[in-house]
Amino acid sequence: MHKSFLMPIYSFEAGVKESSRLLGLKGAGLVRMTAMKLPVPQGFIITTEVCEKFFEAGLRLPDGLMNEVKMAIRELELQVGLKYGDPYNPLLVSVRSGSSISMPGVMATILNVGLNQETVAGLASQKKSKSFAWDCYRRFVHTLTQTVLDIDETVLLKICGEPKVQDVDGLQKIVQSLKDVWKIKTGKAFPEDPYRQLELSISAVLKSWSSRQATEYRKFSGIPPEMANGTAVIIMRMVFGNLGNTSMTGIAFTRSPESGEKKLYGEYLINRQGEELVSGRSIPSQIETLASEFPNVETRLRDITKTLEEQLKQPQQIEFTVEENDLYLLQTRPAEMSAIANVKASVDLCHEGLIDKTTALSRIDPAALEQMIYPSVEHEAHAKPIALGIGASPGSTSGIAVFDLMRAKEMAGKGEQIILVRDEVRPEDAYAFIYSAGVLTLRGGKTSHAIVVARGMGKPCVVGCSQIFRGLEGQNHSFRSQYVINEGQKITIDGTTGKVYLGEIKSTSTKITKELMELLQWANTEKNIEIRGNADTPDDAALAKRYGAEGIGLCRTETMFTEQDMGNTFKRMILTDDTNERKLMLLELNIRQKSVFRNILRQMQNLPVALRLLDAPLHEFLPREEDLISEIEGIMSRPDPDNQLGREKEQVLRRVRELKESNPMLGHRGVRVGISYPEIYESQINAICEAAAELKQNGIAVHPQILVPQVSMLQELKAIRGIFENVKKAVESKYKFGLNIEFGSMIEVVRSCLIADKISTCVDFISFGTNDLTQAVFSFSREDAESKFLAAYIDQNIISINPFQTIDEEGVGMLMKLATMQTRQTSKKVKIGICGEHGGDPASINFFSELGLDYISTSPRRIPIAILSAAQSSIKKRLPSTANSKT
Amino acid sequence: MHKSFLMPIYSFEAGVKESSRLLGLKGAGLVRMTAMKLPVPQGFIITTEVCEKFFEAGLRLPDGLMNEVKMAIRELELQVGLKYGDPYNPLLVSVRSGSSISMPGVMATILNVGLNQETVAGLASQKKSKSFAWDCYRRFVHTLTQTVLDIDETVLLKICGEPKVQDVDGLQKIVQSLKDVWKIKTGKAFPEDPYRQLELSISAVLKSWSSRQATEYRKFSGIPPEMANGTAVIIMRMVFGNLGNTSMTGIAFTRSPESGEKKLYGEYLINRQGEELVSGRSIPSQIETLASEFPNVETRLRDITKTLEEQLKQPQQIEFTVEENDLYLLQTRPAEMSAIANVKASVDLCHEGLIDKTTALSRIDPAALEQMIYPSVEHEAHAKPIALGIGASPGSTSGIAVFDLMRAKEMAGKGEQIILVRDEVRPEDAYAFIYSAGVLTLRGGKTSHAIVVARGMGKPCVVGCSQIFRGLEGQNHSFRSQYVINEGQKITIDGTTGKVYLGEIKSTSTKITKELMELLQWANTEKNIEIRGNADTPDDAALAKRYGAEGIGLCRTETMFTEQDMGNTFKRMILTDDTNERKLMLLELNIRQKSVFRNILRQMQNLPVALRLLDAPLHEFLPREEDLISEIEGIMSRPDPDNQLGREKEQVLRRVRELKESNPMLGHRGVRVGISYPEIYESQINAICEAAAELKQNGIAVHPQILVPQVSMLQELKAIRGIFENVKKAVESKYKFGLNIEFGSMIEVVRSCLIADKISTCVDFISFGTNDLTQAVFSFSREDAESKFLAAYIDQNIISINPFQTIDEEGVGMLMKLATMQTRQTSKKVKIGICGEHGGDPASINFFSELGLDYISTSPRRIPIAILSAAQSSIKKRLPSTANSKT
Repeated sequence: MHKSFLMPIYSFEAGVKESSRLLGLKGAGLVRMTAMKLPVPQGFIITTEVCEKFFEAGLRLPDGLMNEVKMAIRELELQVGLKYGDPYNPLLVSVRSGSSISMPGVMATILNVGLNQETVAGLASQKKSKSFAWDCYRRFVHTLTQTVLDIDETVLLKICGEPKVQDVDGLQKIVQSLKDVWKIKTGKAFPEDPYRQLELSISAVLKSWSSRQATEYRKFSGIPPEMANGTAVIIMRMVFGNLGNTSMTGIAFTRSPESGEKKLYGEYLINRQGEELVSGRSIPSQIETLASEFPNVETRLRDITKTLEEQLKQPQQIEFTVEENDLYLLQTRPAEMSAIANVKASVDLCHEGLIDKTTALSRIDPAALEQMIYPSVEHEAHAKPIALGIGASPGSTSGIAVFDLMRAKEMAGKGEQIILVRDEVRPEDAYAFIYSAGVLTLRGGKTSHAIVVARGMGKPCVVGCSQIFRGLEGQNHSFRSQYVINEGQKITIDGTTGKVYLGEIKSTSTKITKELMELLQWANTEKNIEIRGNADTPDDAALAKRYGAEGIGLCRTETMFTEQDMGNTFKRMILTDDTNERKLMLLELNIRQKSVFRNILRQMQNLPVALRLLDAPLHEFLPREEDLISEIEGIMSRPDPDNQLGREKEQVLRRVRELKESNPMLGHRGVRVGISYPEIYESQINAICEAAAELKQNGIAVHPQILVPQVSMLQELKAIRGIFENVKKAVESKYKFGLNIEFGSMIEVVRSCLIADKISTCVDFISFGTNDLTQAVFSFSREDAESKFLAAYIDQNIISINPFQTIDEEGVGMLMKLATMQTRQTSKKVKIGICGEHGGDPASINFFSELGLDYISTSPRRIPIAILSAAQSSIKKRLPSTANSKT
Repeated sequence: MHKSFLMPIYSFEAGVKESSRLLGLKGAGLVRMTAMKLPVPQGFIITTEVCEKFFEAGLRLPDGLMNEVKMAIRELELQVGLKYGDPYNPLLVSVRSGSSISMPGVMATILNVGLNQETVAGLASQKKSKSFAWDCYRRFVHTLTQTVLDIDETVLLKICGEPKVQDVDGLQKIVQSLKDVWKIKTGKAFPEDPYRQLELSISAVLKSWSSRQATEYRKFSGIPPEMANGTAVIIMRMVFGNLGNTSMTGIAFTRSPESGEKKLYGEYLINRQGEELVSGRSIPSQIETLASEFPNVETRLRDITKTLEEQLKQPQQIEFTVEENDLYLLQTRPAEMSAIANVKASVDLCHEGLIDKTTALSRIDPAALEQMIYPSVEHEAHAKPIALGIGASPGSTSGIAVFDLMRAKEMAGKGEQIILVRDEVRPEDAYAFIYSAGVLTLRGGKTSHAIVVARGMGKPCVVGCSQIFRGLEGQNHSFRSQYVINEGQKITIDGTTGKVYLGEIKSTSTKITKELMELLQWANTEKNIEIRGNADTPDDAALAKRYGAEGIGLCRTETMFTEQDMGNTFKRMILTDDTNERKLMLLELNIRQKSVFRNILRQMQNLPVALRLLDAPLHEFLPREEDLISEIEGIMSRPDPDNQLGREKEQVLRRVRELKESNPMLGHRGVRVGISYPEIYESQINAICEAAAELKQNGIAVHPQILVPQVSMLQELKAIRGIFENVKKAVESKYKFGLNIEFGSMIEVVRSCLIADKISTCVDFISFGTNDLTQAVFSFSREDAESKFLAAYIDQNIISINPFQTIDEEGVGMLMKLATMQTRQTSKKVKIGICGEHGGDPASINFFSELGLDYISTSPRRIPIAILSAAQSSIKKRLPSTANSKT
């Protein structure tokens, strides 16, 4: 592991020769600004290499480092004309962290290093203010004590008292108290030697790389270990924003981080040092007032930001200090901006000729587009949720809590905005979603059938919120320690974060800006994989098309059976075990389905529309066993029982029991139902063929595709293909023209990946179902995994990503590779797509694009994210070195 | 597809030059016997090639075939000295089927072909009996009509009346009626031309190859299509067993097909033709009486059977006819024998020097050994079951139906043999199995946890018997159309067939004969894969060892928690969410587990014992949600509710809900529990290490292996290995000596197959869990698949085997190959085994052996089957041409 040093110390004046990996982002920025002749206080950088050695040696600075530092300080003294540790004309420095990844605010910064009993007097005479000098000294001793000894700030404040800036006596007392704390804790006196101070400060900054906050920040931000190579340490001559009313400290953006508008944006604090702005303890002035109060500073700042953008080709966020009207830049870095701002700034920069389209596309984090697509709770940081569930369908909304399905309809009819609150939702509940602004469930996960429907409808959902109980009038809740929501109460839910709030909290609206539309146009030209939408209804299809879908990659035909009236017929169809009766029900359903198919196909015209045959487990559509039992008991306990009704209910109960499954995920569903009740698939296929024929007769060219779910064997597919060909032939001869309908298979069962070569002999296209595939590859039921153990797995570093969000390349991805290879070898004509939820995840899209799939299908609202991700993936392939998916 | 003929006609006298594939089994046997100079009536064979052409041409005989047949008939006339169709001295022939696979009784046979109004008179004068001749004629017309026109026999008998053999007038009338039927059905007269008769007979026999019975027989027997190449047609001079009291027809075995004893065995019917013996309409004489009644025939038969066995090296089953004291052989084929007989005969033949050990081993169908290992219902064919469930644990047993667990214990205490009848069984019920002779459940499948336990205990089980309702005194069953079993009734269940009987039906006992033990010794020397046993208790381990296990490949440690007292502590351990309380419970469980482990390890001494850490889903061990809810409702509805108790129950309910899973198969179990509650695995590992150490201290060398279930990621394994190494080190330093404990991973999750190269860096051995793997590869939950749709799949030829019984080589097998390859490439030291239920299935064992696995582990009673299968697989590899797994 031990390497010899490349360069432990790097002066700001050494020129732009080394990467931010060695210098840290902050250091590299300072070197660049120095090279641009901008007013940067002089200084030097201890490179990230030293950090590595420091941890390898067990938190010890490498031998000889302090000698190098001394030499660098000597050079600094020459540049500045002050002397470090000199009692009369002391040089003071700041010691800051700066890693190659942006980790704002989580590591240590120590200011005013070099002050002691002697130099504090020198500083006082230098700056002509004893109170200023002692305040600086107090700050230094405070920070060093807090950082080195790892004492909580509030504890320290309690011991030493609140400082008063003008009270020299008081400040001296506080310094003494702090030094006493140091003595008690370490057994030694607080260091007076400025180089010992410097050494301790450097160590403290390096050590803060592995602090709890820093580690958690990296984990939370998903920064991979190989990118986190430690922090550099920046040592810079102190400039003072707290030297009276012509001094200040401030932060400025070259463009608005909220809107992206090109204007100076930021805030400043007069007569303060930088950390006070960061801490948020004082109320700063907005930068708009700078022009009137400090016109020279404002002009200078405006010039500087212009130069910075021209040189760095990216909106910047700078920290500055004004010491007695002289402006200094302490840091510049790419501006942290909202998605909307980032999109606008990138498109504008392109129009301004500073960057090209490729760069503009590469700068937007696709996932951040969610902010523009879904509404969210305004001022989220200040709102207090009462409970945290699982965010199951993004977006936030408010409404009156309603528990009952019928009441929901009734209240919605009166124009009330309601939120449906249920113990759990079942497919037959889904029709009530139409009347609801959002859905909150106390049990269940985000993959249940009804929730998939809600997601399709774009209704915000929070599920599995087990801390909440539903309160009903007159009920005794004395046992409940959890939160009770009463019917009629106003609540707000946020399906992105999973948070539930009491009362109404305003939501931000969606922001599909013209810049976003322009960016997506560029992305469309760049990407080399088709993006389609998942849509179960004509409305969804229209939305998908509006967002740029090049087809429908997945229409779940079972969702239309959750609608109330079709649902009842469907239920009766399942309940009967008489094939003829079933066929009669199917005839009824056929007519309704045909009309839905027709509307979706008409919406998409010539674009491909993949209609997936019934997949949900049958029992999901049936009444509950417990309910039936108590109904029957009720009937039988009457003095004059209705035997006829009882017998009917018993019949239903028997059928419900027959259909009950222990693992519905792996049960009687998909093509298995199509094999055991061929009339069901036959009826659906007929509805598709008839819909296509009717449209064609009216001169509308359409392109339906039939998609068979849950296939694990070639024979299954052949059986259904046989039905398809017969039905198609019959419809064609009825209408006397040919139909262009393709036949495809879902690849969502492990076995189908293993025999993809055989499957591809029997289809026109295949579509990976990565949700089910992930479940089967891990043997994880998603619902159970996410509610039970996946959090512990991520916590304990067993796994770094949730494989249901980002595709597991090692396992699931390997199977997909195998299947894709086999398919391509067998047939050049078979199109390969993917329609799992991973289709909306940028990292997964990159993988699918690299795999060479033909299309990705995702929920309508995620289409922009998918288009942008696909474009970035294409750029990455084309220009491996320049493109970065994150800014 | 069209090939030119090789040889459409083959004379019996042509010598042993062609295979049974061309001649059929029967034809080949006749050729061999003719070559051996045994008394076979002369004849010839139309080869199976013709059958193929016949079906290719749409049920038409190939052009020119009848010319060849005529030439063959002419040759036959010369050999016999009679003339086909001659009115004075007519030659009659039989036309029989005979394919290359044994399909007894399902295809057509037509006797007495060549009779018409003229030849019947010739036959009468030739044999000096008009009634004999007309009876032959009647039989011929009857059979041809029935076969060609495909009329049900009973219908034909109703039309024509029962024949009386001596009544010539009556026989003539019947012949006329039959001819009338022919006329009505075909519009043509019944054929009088003997060659037309022959042509029709040949066609009818060929056509019967594709009859419903024949097709179903092949499907039922699992005969693959490539082996089923059609039937040959055998044309043979008629000899008459119905020519008076010195004539007869009979069947003889060279050894007893029941016991294997070397003696003449069989039965005969005097004055009858062969089909009457087959039809079972007359009561035959036992062959023991032949010596006294027909001493010459008996001596001749004895000589012949001796010759046959000496030449054919296999017990034979022959059909013979005696025509006026002259013995003729109509057929010989390998005898169909019981397993016990087959084992004895094969071992005896080897001792007699007729065959070698390899041949003896190859002749036994390993699956047939079940007959010797498990008891079954005596005279099964005659017993009438009331219901059919799923046979979940083989063997049959009788007892008093008991519904209640406590009553089961009580009655067993009084010495009653009881059968536990439950709606469904849960793990906590399993302790009651100890008191039960067998288990019958009305719901649930054969993979539920408790049933796995029952199988381990060797208790016969029938599950999912939904036609049965449990009757309780005083309850109204008026709705129930199904069978009611009342508590206290005697019933019999057969866990092999799934049948349930009322009353007590005797069971046959197991028959581990000395010949079987000898055969297994030979097999042990031959096989090149280790056979281990699955055993959860010391008793199971002892049984496994007795049956020849070379170790324990799987001990499911969770089964010991189903025992009543350990179960309660375990339940409390799960219910608490306080880690310290959990550790306390674990301490208690630790002591008990250690003692069980010690006993199992002591049992197996130095042989490897794989102890699998807890795998069952936690919620399986908890009270039911419905029960808790009604308990709480009960408590709260009291006038003076016990709030304390209520609160406790609510707490339990909350936990039960937390642990409830929608797909337990893919839920929080196995290593996932080990990761989220590390103290559970730590405690189990400690119990294993301590048990091993205590035994070692007492001078007993043992070889425990720790097996981690449900692994899908390397990190999971590393985390548990970390715990293992710490615990082992601690125990070693406590006892001051080293421990030899191996660490291994189950490969039962698809992902673990895909990363086997990584997994094998972290283990000493891996063990395929093919049950779970099959479920995940197909996305079939076994329970749901077997009860819901697998039958339809097999019926519709979507799938030919149940993949839970025989390994799916294409899918699951491919993953196993991948994992085995990766593992072998990564490490030569890692041992590879398999411990799924496929370990007891001969075809699967052959696959595992070919894959080069190191060991197979199966339930104790299936060990003999596994040993024999493994030996056969080794023979097949060594001598690809000679070995056949089936006789």
